[in-house]
Amino acid sequence: MGSTFGQLFKISTFGESHGGGVGVVIDGCPPQIEISPEEIQFDLDRRRPGQSKITTPRKEADRCEILSGVFEGKTLGTSIAILVRNKDPRPQDYQEMATKFRPSHADATYQAKYGIRNWQGGGRASARETIGRVAAGVIAKKILKQVAGIEIVAYVTRIKDLEVAIDSNKVTLAQVESNMVRCPDPDMAAKMINLIDMVRRDGNSIGGIVECVARGMPVGLGDPVFDKLEADLAKAIMSLPATKGFEIGSGFAGTLLTGREHNDEFYMQGDRIRTKTNRSGGIQGGISNGENIVIRAAFKPTATIMQAQDTVNTAGEEVTLAAKGRHDPCVLPRAVPMVEAMVALVLCDHWLRQKAVS
Amino acid sequence: MGSTFGQLFKISTFGESHGGGVGVVIDGCPPQIEISPEEIQFDLDRRRPGQSKITTPRKEADRCEILSGVFEGKTLGTSIAILVRNKDPRPQDYQEMATKFRPSHADATYQAKYGIRNWQGGGRASARETIGRVAAGVIAKKILKQVAGIEIVAYVTRIKDLEVAIDSNKVTLAQVESNMVRCPDPDMAAKMINLIDMVRRDGNSIGGIVECVARGMPVGLGDPVFDKLEADLAKAIMSLPATKGFEIGSGFAGTLLTGREHNDEFYMQGDRIRTKTNRSGGIQGGISNGENIVIRAAFKPTATIMQAQDTVNTAGEEVTLAAKGRHDPCVLPRAVPMVEAMVALVLCDHWLRQKAVS
Amino acid sequence: MGSTFGQLFKISTFGESHGGGVGVVIDGCPPQIEISPEEIQFDLDRRRPGQSKITTPRKEADRCEILSGVFEGKTLGTSIAILVRNKDPRPQDYQEMATKFRPSHADATYQAKYGIRNWQGGGRASARETIGRVAAGVIAKKILKQVAGIEIVAYVTRIKDLEVAIDSNKVTLAQVESNMVRCPDPDMAAKMINLIDMVRRDGNSIGGIVECVARGMPVGLGDPVFDKLEADLAKAIMSLPATKGFEIGSGFAGTLLTGREHNDEFYMQGDRIRTKTNRSGGIQGGISNGENIVIRAAFKPTATIMQAQDTVNTAGEEVTLAAKGRHDPCVLPRAVPMVEAMVALVLCDHWLRQKAVS
Amino acid sequence: MGSTFGQLFKISTFGESHGGGVGVVIDGCPPQIEISPEEIQFDLDRRRPGQSKITTPRKEADRCEILSGVFEGKTLGTSIAILVRNKDPRPQDYQEMATKFRPSHADATYQAKYGIRNWQGGGRASARETIGRVAAGVIAKKILKQVAGIEIVAYVTRIKDLEVAIDSNKVTLAQVESNMVRCPDPDMAAKMINLIDMVRRDGNSIGGIVECVARGMPVGLGDPVFDKLEADLAKAIMSLPATKGFEIGSGFAGTLLTGREHNDEFYMQGDRIRTKTNRSGGIQGGISNGENIVIRAAFKPTATIMQAQDTVNTAGEEVTLAAKGRHDPCVLPRAVPMVEAMVALVLCDHWLRQKAVS
Repeated sequence: MGSTFGQLFKISTFGESHGGGVGVVIDGCPPQIEISPEEIQFDLDRRRPGQSKITTPRKEADRCEILSGVFEGKTLGTSIAILVRNKDPRPQDYQEMATKFRPSHADATYQAKYGIRNWQGGGRASARETIGRVAAGVIAKKILKQVAGIEIVAYVTRIKDLEVAIDSNKVTLAQVESNMVRCPDPDMAAKMINLIDMVRRDGNSIGGIVECVARGMPVGLGDPVFDKLEADLAKAIMSLPATKGFEIGSGFAGTLLTGREHNDEFYMQGDRIRTKTNRSGGIQGGISNGENIVIRAAFKPTATIMQAQDTVNTAGEEVTLAAKGRHDPCVLPRAVPMVEAMVALVLCDHWLRQKAVS
Repeated sequence: MGSTFGQLFKISTFGESHGGGVGVVIDGCPPQIEISPEEIQFDLDRRRPGQSKITTPRKEADRCEILSGVFEGKTLGTSIAILVRNKDPRPQDYQEMATKFRPSHADATYQAKYGIRNWQGGGRASARETIGRVAAGVIAKKILKQVAGIEIVAYVTRIKDLEVAIDSNKVTLAQVESNMVRCPDPDMAAKMINLIDMVRRDGNSIGGIVECVARGMPVGLGDPVFDKLEADLAKAIMSLPATKGFEIGSGFAGTLLTGREHNDEFYMQGDRIRTKTNRSGGIQGGISNGENIVIRAAFKPTATIMQAQDTVNTAGEEVTLAAKGRHDPCVLPRAVPMVEAMVALVLCDHWLRQKAVS
Repeated sequence: MGSTFGQLFKISTFGESHGGGVGVVIDGCPPQIEISPEEIQFDLDRRRPGQSKITTPRKEADRCEILSGVFEGKTLGTSIAILVRNKDPRPQDYQEMATKFRPSHADATYQAKYGIRNWQGGGRASARETIGRVAAGVIAKKILKQVAGIEIVAYVTRIKDLEVAIDSNKVTLAQVESNMVRCPDPDMAAKMINLIDMVRRDGNSIGGIVECVARGMPVGLGDPVFDKLEADLAKAIMSLPATKGFEIGSGFAGTLLTGREHNDEFYMQGDRIRTKTNRSGGIQGGISNGENIVIRAAFKPTATIMQAQDTVNTAGEEVTLAAKGRHDPCVLPRAVPMVEAMVALVLCDHWLRQKAVS
Repeated sequence: MGSTFGQLFKISTFGESHGGGVGVVIDGCPPQIEISPEEIQFDLDRRRPGQSKITTPRKEADRCEILSGVFEGKTLGTSIAILVRNKDPRPQDYQEMATKFRPSHADATYQAKYGIRNWQGGGRASARETIGRVAAGVIAKKILKQVAGIEIVAYVTRIKDLEVAIDSNKVTLAQVESNMVRCPDPDMAAKMINLIDMVRRDGNSIGGIVECVARGMPVGLGDPVFDKLEADLAKAIMSLPATKGFEIGSGFAGTLLTGREHNDEFYMQGDRIRTKTNRSGGIQGGISNGENIVIRAAFKPTATIMQAQDTVNTAGEEVTLAAKGRHDPCVLPRAVPMVEAMVALVLCDHWLRQKAVS
């Protein structure tokens, strides 16, 4: 269990970093949606390693193949399978880690839970697993955009202590893609890139925050009391590798305000109920209110570092490990399309759910 | 949809603040677990209104009745239904709010989504809905304690800007219950109580943070890649009313550290793999590592306040509303058993899931 | 697990034959459906014991209470809970069966599976469990009728070897309810009633077949490849107590025809595609084709009989048991509303599912 | 929705008869199960077309590739993906059927439901879709055999009116595989083969019955009240293409007996509770009782025949169609491994479920 996500727009991902390939089966996609491998490839390219000097230099072209569910360029309404073959394995880079557990990585817990693991490159715990999510997310974004008019944009707002406020109402994909760290503020982006590069050369790693906005939201998505929209978003985000925290709207900072300061007062804009502020982050009572949804995800520094650390091995001995191989000094740039994908999957699922009962 | 939670230990809650009652059906509870109404009542009393001067003065005894699934004091292995009757309605307190939407409350979104709502006291969006969760949580806690040796303790660590660090390794239920705000630090608790009381008299409200620890954790709970333990915990917590953020382990603060600083180095304690630090919060790669699980939930200030606010009414007119009735100036004291319940529900579900495949 | 049914129109039932009561939580009912306790009561009365001389003489009024989810006569879109209190217990009737397992009943398997059972009157395995299903089925039938124009009628076509062909295109609820065995053919009904009465006096039991038709079907319900409409109907029917077989359309008899004889040729009726015959039973490829859905369910003779049978007891000794108490000599008359309910639950669920993607 | 099956041993299948390929993702397989492509290939070869003169002459080698979830010959506990490439397309055979709907086939309902279909060879409604089920079924059978000692054997007992009783306690895979129709009685098998061959030359088709036994059953599988073991088996079987009926134990014939005749009396065999007869088919109250599970599935005659039939086309005109291409005159021989797979998937799922709570 655990590799299936969603109620109506349901995805099942598969694949380890090494082996035949990774991918996804999407069960529940509406029919007659136009989709092409090229559209999927666009986000896979934003996610793939080796795209810039601040990501891992592993070369993975990550070309996708749509195996089923699309006919003459349109979805059939039946299950869609997408496959990306694994390439450039270099299992030798992982030889030492076959027996030595990386601190704060999934090595030890996978071994304990399953009694077996594919130690080559992280196996199922590799970020490579997110390829299936990103591919499915492209289709979810397409549906949301085309049928519901929803647009989703994610971007980096913090790398370690370098933080910048971004106007979520206006930020564009072009701004995000204008630099390799995917922070829409060019000046801050330059500083972030320098910091990541420095940390990389030091064999260390850093983390940060990705913010994501969904604009053009309809009112009414979300199913209280458990499948509140923010609850499903939280699960989606916290299922991404390396996440340590989730916020919506005012988030943790909201605890510092009084109710009088925090409440989003209503006003009428034509015949539409609007809020003057958006500390709610676009969701009230678990249901979207039509304002922009704004969430934030905290990503920890990459666990795999080149510096020596104390650890233990599979024989139960205390040893030292300095990781080898080609690892991201900071996952944030590549996490941006992952966050978009997860937000899209949740919104698409809830959009279908709301259609069912309305 | 939306009122069902869990895969194997599955609960379905029901009930509005007004009407016949609220409660829960638990489908998937193992047989032969001893359970009594008194055990359930203990946490319902911690959750109920009117328990102290800093909670709403509504008088709701919230006596529970076990309708099914328990025979001669033991669970039957079939579905358990628990009912709490509604009392002390006073719908007149809500008369004005029948037509005026409370800012940052669920009134407007429920109306928009369903085209109908029980405007008496919040209806399904009332915190009264959590009674079913708390009742089910008691059974989950009992199972975890008895069969798996897991102990769950939640407590308040922040009220607005009053914050205190609590040693999650040692905090006890008795310490939590020693004061009405449920902060285990007596000095800070006194300050918090004063602050809440002051805010209450001002007709305003405040929020804060609840932290929760699960001790005695087995290794191996959690099902990557989507049902990672922290992902299910995040969903569980973010489904509680008034939550705006979720953290595990180092959380958002973890983004300020380097990998070298953040990683939890391993060592051997006898034949058990331990970590020197616990920035992971007891979970690595989505799977529990045997260290304590530590999570935090941010609760916003209560939306319903006595001060006048701008809002709109059901006729689409801009109006002013100063809420009447009996509302919590701060949900944190009563949120503590809710957080415990949600954490217990997730852990119990995953404990059963892990039994299935091991 | 196991007491929850449906994907979008999801029900969770609870209750044993003895204890606080039985009922259901419906999670996923659309909002603004008018529903009254009286409507629910109508089918509960068709299901309840003691309604005629050929059913068990147990007196159970089975009055239902809607606990939640309905406000001012309309559904709220949130979970609906319905409760029926248990009455007239007489556990003494079951004293001997507390230790002696009834042959072909659930006593022994419940004891083996759960290690515990409520031996009073069948516990969870009692037909009393179906109250929750029937109550939920009323709401499903209401939705199907009102929003989709679908009408569901079930009726008895066989009691033991007394069999009659009924025109499923024309049979009415009034015809079904015109006699106590619920066979729309009055002559055959009289014979069936005599047979059941004779068997009852003999302390024996008999079974038979219930047929059910759904008329006014839209095209397009059913989700291949696993959630084909006939697959979900089969599960629904085979989850009813005492069922041994399920057929759709031509059923087992269809295996005696060639393809040329069996195929339903198409023709145009206006702009609607129709079939000349309906051996498909209204479903082709797992999807409704707009023709009437016709299914049949085989019910075995009631397991609990007054005649002496060989059995074993909880101590592992071979003993003899002649059941006491008040049992149905034939479940068929009371099974009719249960079959309608299950068919309605499946169709309602699939109707919502189809709305989501179209 | 609809291409996902199972709760704990969950499979998602994908693929149309034409396009990149067909396959399955298995989410929830326990770790450390030895599995090889050869084992999977064994049943794929039993399922594939062109294996004998009485199946379709289409040449499909159906070689499987395990894409993920298996490492050094053992399952990893994470999702397993299996892919079989499509070959030998000949879409020209289907050119006429691109616009003319085959009577009693899924063509018309797919077109109506989705507004689009892959008309080449049946698309998703092709029996080719069952490749994923059969592949997953091999792993389920392996687990059941290895960990639980359960053995599953299916076989043909009827082709049209040629019927034979098979001793389900003794029938072996070798007997089933000893002839091309998969009826363990050699004399009857010869007659069946002749009949199918005659029907094939006539451009017509026939159906029949597959029986399946599960031996070595543990007591306690099945989750009342909805997920009764026979209910899940019924759904599994009725989700196979061309099925019209399902029976367990005495089935429809059981309606002809009295309770006294039908009940399975208990006796002790050592310390094990046994039944003298097995009209229950191994399940009582929805829970396995340790006796052999015996179920039967009715398969209609193949819809696609070479003889001319009345039908309509996509333009809404009444036309005549005599199918071209290479079709099975009788699906029964190839349905045998499909039935085994579906029974195995249900039992494996319930075996895991029972482990969770016991």
